[in-house]
Order: sequence, then structure tokens, then C-alpha cells
Amino acid sequence: MKRRIREILSWYGSDNPGTLTNLARILNQGKLGGTGKLVILPVDQGVEHGPARTFIPNPGGFDPRYHFELAIDAGLSAYAAPLGFLEAGARDYAGDLPLIMKVNNRENLSSDKDPLQAVTGSVEAALRIGCAAIGYTVYPGSMHRVVMYEKLQALTEEAKRHGLAVVVWSYPRGSDISKEGETALDVSAYAAQIAAQMGANIIKVKPPDDFVEQGEARKTYEKAGVETDTLPKRIEHVIKSAFDGRRVTIFSGGAAKGTDAVLEEIRGIRDGGGFGSIMGRNAFQRERSEALELLGSVIKIYQGKL
Amino acid sequence: MKRRIREILSWYGSDNPGTLTNLARILNQGKLGGTGKLVILPVDQGVEHGPARTFIPNPGGFDPRYHFELAIDAGLSAYAAPLGFLEAGARDYAGDLPLIMKVNNRENLSSDKDPLQAVTGSVEAALRIGCAAIGYTVYPGSMHRVVMYEKLQALTEEAKRHGLAVVVWSYPRGSDISKEGETALDVSAYAAQIAAQMGANIIKVKPPDDFVEQGEARKTYEKAGVETDTLPKRIEHVIKSAFDGRRVTIFSGGAAKGTDAVLEEIRGIRDGGGFGSIMGRNAFQRERSEALELLGSVIKIYQGKL
Amino acid sequence: MKRRIREILSWYGSDNPGTLTNLARILNQGKLGGTGKLVILPVDQGVEHGPARTFIPNPGGFDPRYHFELAIDAGLSAYAAPLGFLEAGARDYAGDLPLIMKVNNRENLSSDKDPLQAVTGSVEAALRIGCAAIGYTVYPGSMHRVVMYEKLQALTEEAKRHGLAVVVWSYPRGSDISKEGETALDVSAYAAQIAAQMGANIIKVKPPDDFVEQGEARKTYEKAGVETDTLPKRIEHVIKSAFDGRRVTIFSGGAAKGTDAVLEEIRGIRDGGGFGSIMGRNAFQRERSEALELLGSVIKIYQGKL
Amino acid sequence: MKRRIREILSWYGSDNPGTLTNLARILNQGKLGGTGKLVILPVDQGVEHGPARTFIPNPGGFDPRYHFELAIDAGLSAYAAPLGFLEAGARDYAGDLPLIMKVNNRENLSSDKDPLQAVTGSVEAALRIGCAAIGYTVYPGSMHRVVMYEKLQALTEEAKRHGLAVVVWSYPRGSDISKEGETALDVSAYAAQIAAQMGANIIKVKPPDDFVEQGEARKTYEKAGVETDTLPKRIEHVIKSAFDGRRVTIFSGGAAKGTDAVLEEIRGIRDGGGFGSIMGRNAFQRERSEALELLGSVIKIYQGKL
Amino acid sequence: MKRRIREILSWYGSDNPGTLTNLARILNQGKLGGTGKLVILPVDQGVEHGPARTFIPNPGGFDPRYHFELAIDAGLSAYAAPLGFLEAGARDYAGDLPLIMKVNNRENLSSDKDPLQAVTGSVEAALRIGCAAIGYTVYPGSMHRVVMYEKLQALTEEAKRHGLAVVVWSYPRGSDISKEGETALDVSAYAAQIAAQMGANIIKVKPPDDFVEQGEARKTYEKAGVETDTLPKRIEHVIKSAFDGRRVTIFSGGAAKGTDAVLEEIRGIRDGGGFGSIMGRNAFQRERSEALELLGSVIKIYQGKL
Repeated sequence: MKRRIREILSWYGSDNPGTLTNLARILNQGKLGGTGKLVILPVDQGVEHGPARTFIPNPGGFDPRYHFELAIDAGLSAYAAPLGFLEAGARDYAGDLPLIMKVNNRENLSSDKDPLQAVTGSVEAALRIGCAAIGYTVYPGSMHRVVMYEKLQALTEEAKRHGLAVVVWSYPRGSDISKEGETALDVSAYAAQIAAQMGANIIKVKPPDDFVEQGEARKTYEKAGVETDTLPKRIEHVIKSAFDGRRVTIFSGGAAKGTDAVLEEIRGIRDGGGFGSIMGRNAFQRERSEALELLGSVIKIYQGKL
Repeated sequence: MKRRIREILSWYGSDNPGTLTNLARILNQGKLGGTGKLVILPVDQGVEHGPARTFIPNPGGFDPRYHFELAIDAGLSAYAAPLGFLEAGARDYAGDLPLIMKVNNRENLSSDKDPLQAVTGSVEAALRIGCAAIGYTVYPGSMHRVVMYEKLQALTEEAKRHGLAVVVWSYPRGSDISKEGETALDVSAYAAQIAAQMGANIIKVKPPDDFVEQGEARKTYEKAGVETDTLPKRIEHVIKSAFDGRRVTIFSGGAAKGTDAVLEEIRGIRDGGGFGSIMGRNAFQRERSEALELLGSVIKIYQGKL
Repeated sequence: MKRRIREILSWYGSDNPGTLTNLARILNQGKLGGTGKLVILPVDQGVEHGPARTFIPNPGGFDPRYHFELAIDAGLSAYAAPLGFLEAGARDYAGDLPLIMKVNNRENLSSDKDPLQAVTGSVEAALRIGCAAIGYTVYPGSMHRVVMYEKLQALTEEAKRHGLAVVVWSYPRGSDISKEGETALDVSAYAAQIAAQMGANIIKVKPPDDFVEQGEARKTYEKAGVETDTLPKRIEHVIKSAFDGRRVTIFSGGAAKGTDAVLEEIRGIRDGGGFGSIMGRNAFQRERSEALELLGSVIKIYQGKL
Repeated sequence: MKRRIREILSWYGSDNPGTLTNLARILNQGKLGGTGKLVILPVDQGVEHGPARTFIPNPGGFDPRYHFELAIDAGLSAYAAPLGFLEAGARDYAGDLPLIMKVNNRENLSSDKDPLQAVTGSVEAALRIGCAAIGYTVYPGSMHRVVMYEKLQALTEEAKRHGLAVVVWSYPRGSDISKEGETALDVSAYAAQIAAQMGANIIKVKPPDDFVEQGEARKTYEKAGVETDTLPKRIEHVIKSAFDGRRVTIFSGGAAKGTDAVLEEIRGIRDGGGFGSIMGRNAFQRERSEALELLGSVIKIYQGKL
Repeated sequence: MKRRIREILSWYGSDNPGTLTNLARILNQGKLGGTGKLVILPVDQGVEHGPARTFIPNPGGFDPRYHFELAIDAGLSAYAAPLGFLEAGARDYAGDLPLIMKVNNRENLSSDKDPLQAVTGSVEAALRIGCAAIGYTVYPGSMHRVVMYEKLQALTEEAKRHGLAVVVWSYPRGSDISKEGETALDVSAYAAQIAAQMGANIIKVKPPDDFVEQGEARKTYEKAGVETDTLPKRIEHVIKSAFDGRRVTIFSGGAAKGTDAVLEEIRGIRDGGGFGSIMGRNAFQRERSEALELLGSVIKIYQGKL
């Protein structure tokens, strides 16, 4: 075991060896294996946005096997998807890379200012098909947050009891949060803190913007002279908010965009001390060779080679 | 086992042999047995529309045994009905054809823009009376969808643990979906994707119309130049949306209509690569000999003989 | 066992011998034993209407033992009441006649357009005090119907697993049903169908009036020329709607009324093929000797002697 | 065992010997032991009204041990209180008098027209600390009644399975009941009936006023010429409504008031056939010697000596 | 065991030796060990207020280990925090001081007049990481109080069955309570009483102001001439309301403020007979040496040395 991985595992002193083993499987997988950095491929947009918007740009992705192979060939750390997509390839690619079952989901056939996800997977299913972790989305700030937190608590306890790791997508949302507030610095830091306090092994938040949502937080930043003008500084604050950097925290890539913009953002995440990225649409909606190239570049950035 | 059936079963690599056995029972039953195509008789309209509207047009259907015999004599693949209808014939026709217990239902004595079905059957009951599968309706888009998805998740897990197959009726509905949007192409594709992601072995959706409901989807279709002007092309898109054709997806027949219209639609489904039909009112509301003739024609279409 | 009873039991091919034994206990009890007809005494009005309105007209009825003795002495088929009333006599009259525990109830101290009953009994309690069946009320059409159906599903499964029979009171009600619609022909037929589909062994509905509530049903009746002008014809339609007469369906007597009116209605039920009556207020609110005389006449009608 | 107690126990023919033993413990306790009459001390006002209003008038009552000793020294039949108050003395006074754990409670820090109590105790806790019974409040008429009835059903089943007795406080309340209707004669009788039908061993209602709330009930009283002008006559009607006097029914004392008014009311309860009283604020809010004197007088009234 | 601790334990006669052992661990810990006084460090503001407002003033606190060390070095009695913060240090500091898992929490990303906390920890987790107690917040007066009380009841029962102690934060809140009413004397006393009645071993309330919220309580205070003008007198009343001082009741420090104001308040708590303090922001938001000095002074006050 590389020393850095052993160090990271040491932060999770209350988790059992089973959970640590699964966390290590992810951290030791692929081209970033052993570096303490990681890149995950998530494909839950089939449910979240519908198959047309999601897969038509690169129709190979209609086939669930496509994503397993993309993640393997790109040398990524893990592949995350809902139950159906994972079940459709778990036997064929058994042992090839760590899987994360995204156990809750929301389709966008109706809109809600205060969203709630439905539990569509389970710890039993994750164990049955050989996953290393479950993934779960919370919407801090939503009127339905109590339900979401309590389900997360129960699933986390069950997952960890059975030696799985837990990945939490923490996306503030709700009628008391402004649209830009969803990616505000204070709100992203808050999101990371909440996931950490809930017991997440890996935390996923959005890269924070140079904006502060809550008045009380603004006063604190100003008084302490916290610098928020560059992405690395903001990433650093979010990482600090996840137990002073003692929880693996990664960042999503957001909507599909140009290669330069993607790589620029990744550099910012790296420079701020982020542990890595979770990159979906920017990967699987590109033609396969382009996607492999992009993911190769991302990995190089985290390796410090680009 | 015919090679095509073995191929289909290979798509379900995460299901246990018990579930595959029951799926194979359906795919090997009746005149289409072994072809990879299937036609199911569903009779849940006694609950969904009431007995008067449902059975008066062909009063033999008041007797639950009528439908077992119709499905057997027509050489269909399976018979799907609520608990009561199945219990009323399961002993008499034990072993004659695969049964699917429709475990949730909704009567129409009150109206809701955002409908919800009640769970009226169970895995235990399905096992007790020898069913091959449970059937479950979700209404993607309904405000009550979270409840429906979570019950489906639990029932699917229980059914598959006990070696049953799972059939999902996926019918988008709800206050954010327009009336014509319920059968829009993007929405039907979305419905199929959701059912597949939830772990369905067989997916039932409505034949899609040449209409796109969601603005984001429309942009994608237009940009990619997806052709949507014929039923076969639209069926093909829906099939693609169900894991690139790696999930058995069948289409309902809708309201009772003339024989020619029915057969025309079946041809479209076949030509688009659909796996078959589920045909209720168009079958059991016709006089028995007429129904047998119609079902015979449907089967011939799927056999490529008509 | 009389041939008719054996025939009736043959309709319930999916129920275990325990449930059939309890159903047979009811069908073999009292003066109508072995005829396939039955009359049940229900006394849940103490909860449903309050003790003053219910028992003051014939104060002997305040004592729970009164009703056991009335049902026994009149030679009825069974006695149905809530937990408390049954517990107060079950030991004294153990083995004297089949008991049906009415496991849900509603008091009328507040009003609701969309009513819901509370579960006040249980299968465990029914078994503990020697009942032959549980009884349960559903309100098809009520906004709370999903809750009621799901509880009925669970209770039915538990009851039948333990060899009890299930009696369902099916009373359409709710904000989308007009007052007269509650006893409309189509609605009564619908109510019977729903109870049958839910797995009821015995179904209780109200005698239908010559009125059709739902537009779609009206069209069907008119097109098919269904005759609805006499009570026997309407009863026949309801019986047909309960699996073509293959489920024991009985009719309530409604509010207390004159003897002639009661007997006239019973004849109509009999002539339409109804399996019997459930008669509460018309029985226990009369002075005992009068009640015995009336129940004697009712029995004679079902025996074809009056 | 005194003959009267044996007679009372005979009314509960469906309860197990464990429950009868605990009921007998209450009926054989204290100065009224063996008479079939009983007086219970309830102290749940610390939660229901707050400690200031409750205990400042007689500050000894802040100490939970005070009430155990008051009940023992006054020779009462049982002491009823929430979990915390009982836990604070159960070891010290173990075996000294029967305890009733009031397992649901409501504080008055917010107001509701349709109240609901929270479950704050349990059968497990009651057994663990040696209680003879659980106590539970229902609010017939409240919009939340279904929840309350269903919890009572479950708790009663669990309590009786473990040999505890069940005491039900039945207090009609809710937006469809007028303020004076809460203690109307028909409503009090209804409350007693409901508790009896739910399986209560001991029923607690408020003494009824000479007022009738429900129109249908009024007609019945008038038609039957029921006399309602004296408290004994009204008590008699309530007792009759509790299974013709075959359920132990006791009456609360209401707000603190003068000694003469209290004793006058007790005589009315006794003369109407009431089984006893439950007296809280009128007892523990008086100075201890006064309280003992008052309770002594109450007992003498029930003994027929005053 | 010091006599005072043995005396305190004697008040909890219904708790098992396991719970008493854990309560003793807290009372025997640190500089106040054996005195019957205690000071607890709580750090749940990362969730309740967000990490920015909470930890920027003293950034060492971003690291979860900081708080363990602060509590140990200051000689405090226990450290209370949510699951995540405790899990992040429980192995490193195992056995160093008693831990209290705060098992419910609320973030402030949306506002509610009637707040509700989400359950984010569990008894299983508390046992697994070696905690001495669970901590739980109730909001008496909130419209969601029934849910909160019932969860507390269940958690308390489970915790005590497994030998943990239970600490209840009782903070009245809700649309029927005025802002200043939240710390009114009668309301604080009420809050303490409720926690005691729910079975709390340690009760935490806010120091009461010289204000009375409820009209009925005001009358009682005035009639009895209760003096409320100094903090010690008010503290005394609250302590009396917690079972006449037979439940360990401690007071929170509120928002960060100046050292003198803090110490002044602590003296008031001590002089009124309070058992101690729970001090979060006033401790961990100060620079470490200042915090140690302040906590040292607080301890000296409780030791009667300052």
C-alpha cells in the first residue's frame, strides 16, 4: 500500500476494515491509483435528464456496457450509476473496476423548488453485484431535507456495517436558496461539512463560485479577510470545511463544455487541494476517442504532469 | 433452449437463475415461444375502469376463467391481472401459462392530476399462487412518484430475491406533463429508461407519438437529426432508450379500436424492433372467436408472416 | 358437506384449507346452513353512530351479550362486531356461532367528505378470541383510498395465511362521488368488483338504486341495453360483477325501516341471486321478539318459503 | 378474592390471567380494595400544563416522590403518571401500590383545535419498572383520531399480550365539536363506548353535563324520554354506554375547585353507579393534610359512609 | 465513588447499572470529577450554522481533533458532537474522555417557524465508537413536536436498554411562542420538566430571562409571590422544575460574548444550584490559550474558587 493511501485511510479511524478495503480499492484503481487523487465516471443522467438529452450526443452510450469500458479504458478510479445500469454490466466486468451504486435518483418530469430524490437502489443490491460503495444525493436546504438526511443515516449505517464505502453528493437546493447561491462559496463549504458530519467517506460538491449567499457567513469572511477571488482559494476553503482536509472531497464538472474550460477548472481544483473529479457529461457525451483524450488530460493534471 | 432466448437471458447478468427461469417461461410460452417476441393479455380494467365499462361489451369476461382460457387458446405468452382475478383461476389452470400478478392498481372513482396506485398484491401472494412475475405501474412525473419508485424498489428486490421476474408499466403522468406529452416520443423513451434503471426485466410503455414534450429533448433531437416521423423510427428510439435494446420492451394497445388500426400499429412496433405487445381491451372486449382471430393475426405479424 | 357448499368453496381455489374451513363454518351455520345463503348480524353502530342513537331504541342492546344471543336464537350465520363487543362475549359463547371481527371503524364525531377508517382490531386478536373471519371497510373513491387498500391488502394476506376468511364492506364515498352515486348501480357493481379483486371471500355492498353515476358506464349500459329498472335485475348485475357470481356477495339493509319494506327488499335481493343479507339496525333496534320474527321471515325468504 | 372483584373480572372473559391479575391488583389496593370502587391519583399536568401552574400551588409536588407517598398514604387504588415521574420513584416504592404509565402526553406550548398526543412511554418501559397498566388518551373527533386509535390498538395488543391492563382516557375534542359539546351527555357516552370497543379495561371520561351535542342523539333521547337533569341519571347513562356497566368506568374531577363542590360531584358519580374517580389537581395542589382529608372523604363516599 | 456522585446516581433508580456507569463516567471526568458539577464542550455548529461562521474565527477548529484535545486539556466532563466529528477522533482519543453523540441536527439553509431536526446518528453508532451517551434536541411547542418526542422516546428506550445515558437539549420554539418567550422563565422551566418526564439523564436548557410567556403561569407566579428578578432565583426555579433538583440540569452559554459576561452568567447558574454548563462557541471560537483560560475560570466558579 502506498504511504499516501495509508495516510488517507488513517483519517477514517471509526470505519471497519471492510469499508477501508473498499475505499482503498477506489484509491488504488486506475492511472491515479496510489496517488491519493481520483476521477470517477458517473452516469445517472439517463434518469436525471432522460435518455434523449443524455445519450443522443454520443449514441454509443445508450448501451450500458459502453460506460464500463470507457471508465476502464480511461484508467479511472470508479464508475457510478443507478441500479439498472450497473446490473446490466456487473457480471461482464466483474472485478475490472470499483462500482458505486447511486442509490437515490430523481427524474425531471416534474419540477419542484424543494426537490427530493427517490431511493431506487439498496445496500443489499450493491453487495449482491459487487459494488465498492453506495452513492447518495442530499439536497441541503430543501424542505424535504429531513427525509433525505434520515434515509442517508440509515443507508450509511447499513452500508458501513457491511463494509461498503459511502459517497455523498451534497447539492444545496430549495426555496430559501437563490439560484446562484447553490454554488456559492459558503454554501459549497456548508454542503461539504454536512456530508462529512453525516459520515461520508467521499464527498462530492460543485466547484464554488466567488459569491457568498448567507449574510452571517459574509460577515465572517470579511472580518477574517478570507480570500475568495480565485478557484484554488475557494477550493481550499471547501476542502478545509471537510474536516480540515481529512475527508476525500471531489468536485463535479457541471454541464458539458469546451475542453479548455474543463481543464482550466480541473487545474483550479488541483491547485486548491481537491482530491479529484467526478466527470459525467463532459466525458460520455464526447465521442469515445475524444473522451479518452480529455480524461487522459484530466488525469495528467492530477498527476501534476499538465 | 433456443439461441435467441439464451441471448436475451444473457442481458440480465445480475439476475439470479430463478428470475431467468421465470423470464424464460414467458419467452418460451405459446405460439411465439422461442422467437424472442411475446404477447401478453392484461386484464386489470375491472379495477381501473370498473366492471360495467369493461365486461359488458363481451359479458363472458365477467368470469375470471374466461381470460385464462382466452390467453391459453390464443397461444399467448402470459396473462397479467390483479390478485383477485388470478386467485380465481390459478388452481384450475396451474401450469398452463405464466401468470403475472399486477401488484398495484388504481380505480377511477376519483380523479387526480397526479395519480398514485395502491399496492393490492404482494410477492408472497405471487409465489403462493405460482406466478412467474409481478407487474407494477409507475407514473413518472406524478407528484407521488417518490412513493411509487420506492415501493417498486422494495418489491423488485423482494421479487428477484425469490426468483420472480419483474414487469414495469411505465406511464408518465402528472401536473407538469401535457395530455399529449404522456405519449410524446421523448417521454416514452424516458419512461422506458426509468423502468430499465429500476431493474425491470420486461418494460411496458405506450407507442410513442410524433411529438416531443420537453424543450431540452427537442433541441437534442433536432441537433442530431433524429427522425421521428414514422412509428417504426419512434419505436426504435424507445427500444434504444431501454439499454440499447438489451431489455425486453413491449407496447400497449391503448383503447379498443378497429382491427385494421390495431394490426397496422403492431406492424409498426415489430418493424421498429419492439419485442411485442400487451393487448387487453382490444382482445377481451371482442367476441371470443373474433378475439382469437385478432390475436392470431398479431402473433403472425410478430412471426413475420403477416 | 352439502353439495352447494362444496361448490361455493370450489370457487376459492387459491385459499388454503384453513380459510375454506372458516368460510364453511359460516355457510353451514344456523337455519340457512348448507343452503349457500347467509344472514349476518353486524353491530358496529355503537362506534359508527354512538351508543345513544344505536341502543336507546332497544336498550337491551347496551349489553354486548344481547347480540350474541340474538344472532344465535335467530339462527343466523355469523355475528360481526368491533374488538370490544366481541371480547365481551367470546368466552361465554365460544363455539356457538362464527364471529367476524370488524377490524376497522370510524366514529362520526367529525365529518369528512373523504372518509378514512381507523384499524381498531387485528388478525392476532381475531385468532385469539376464536373468530372465523375479519371484516374490513373500504371507501372506494375516497382521497384516502390508497391507505385503505394497502392496509386491506396487508390484513388480508395475514388473515388468509392464518386460515381466517375475509369479509369486505365496500362503500364508495368521496368528494368526486355524488350522494346518490354512492348507491348507483355502476358504483355498487364497481364496489363489488374491487372487493373481489382485493381477495375478499365475502363481499358486502349496498343494494343498488336505479341510477348510474359515471358517464362512461352509462354509455355502456345503454349500448348493451342492460335493464336496470327492478331491484332483482340490478342485484343480478352486481352479482355478475363479483366474478360472475363466483364470490359470495351479500347486501346491507340500510337505515331502520318498516317490516314490509325490509322484506320486500330481501325478496329483491334473493330474486336477483344475492347470497344473503347483513342486517343490523333493522334487527337489534327492534324489540327482541319482533326482531326474531323479522329475522325468521328474512330467513324464510332466502329459503324460498315466503 | 372478594366476590365483587371476582364478578368484575368475569366481565373480561377475553383477557388473559396476566391482565386480570393486574386489574385485580388495582381493585384490591388501598382503602377501597375489594369494594369494586376505585380512586386513582393522576399526575401528568407537569407535562400537560407545565410545572409552574401545576406545582407552585403546593411546592412539595415538584418532587416526584411526593405523589407516590400521597397516593399510598391516602389509601388510593393506583398512581398514574408519565414515564419520567414513575421512573423517579418506582424503585423506592416498588410493590407499594399499582402504577399506571401514562404512555402518551401533550404539552400546551402550542394550540391545536384538533389535538394529538405524542407517545412518550412504552409497554417495555411499563413492564421494566413494574407497572400494572398503561394509560392512553384518545381524542375522539380530532382530525388526528385515526393515528391515535391505531396507536392505541397496537399498544393495547402489546400490553395485553404481556399481561398489563389498559386504561383509556377518552376526551372528545376537535373542530367539529363545540366547547360545551366536549362534556355533553351524548358525547361522554360516545367516548365511553369508543374506549370500551377499543378494548379498555378501565375507562376514564369526564362527568357529563346536561347538554346534548349531536342532533340525531337529541332526537333519540327525546323520543325515548331519557332523563338527563341530574348528574346521577347522566352518570347512569354513561355507565350503560360502557357495555351496560360491564366495563370499569371512572370519572375525572376536572379543574381544582372547592371541597364541597368536589364531594357533591363524587356523590353524583357514586349514585349514578360510577366505579370511581381519578383525581389529580384537586388532590396534589392542596396542602398535604388537606389533600389527605379530601381523599379520605372521597373514599368514604364511595364506601357509602358519607 | 465520591458520596455526591453516589447520591446523584441514586436519583435514577429505574436506570440499569450500564446507564449509571456511563453517567458516572461523565460525572467523574476532568477537573470537576466527583463534585457533582460538570462542563461539557458541544460542537454541533458546523451543521447548525455552517463551517464558515463556526470555524473561521479560530481556524484550528476545522480539524475535528482540535475539539477532542480542547476538551481533554481543559479538563472538561465530556465532548458532544454529531456522528461525523466524533468518528473522526474516536479511535485516536479512545478512553480519554466521555463522548456524547448528538444524534439529531438541523442545518440553517432553510428557515422554519416550527423547526424539526433530522436524526443523523444512532444508538448503534454511539455504541460502536464508544460513546457514554446520546444527545437529542427537542423543540417543545413546534408543530413537529409529536414526531420529535416519539423519536426521542424510541431512541431513549434503545439507548438505556444498551446502557447509554441520555442528554436532552430542550429548546422551546414554534409559531405559538414569541421570540423572547423562548427563554422565558416559565418556558425554560417547562422545557426542563418535559425533558425530565421523557426520561433524560442530563437536561440542557437555556438560562431563563426575567420574563413570563404564558398567562396562566404568570398568574401562578404572582399569586405565590415567586421571585424572578435575579438569575440565581430563576435558575433555582428551573432546577426545581426538573424533579425538585433530582435530575442533572445544565445550561447553555448562548452566542459568543465577552469573558466577563460569560463568567457572570456562570456564577448565576452556580448560585441558583445549576449542575453546570455546556459551552460551545464561547470556548472553541476563542484562540486556544484564551479558551483554556476561560474554561479554567468556569471550572473554578463551579469549584467555588472564583
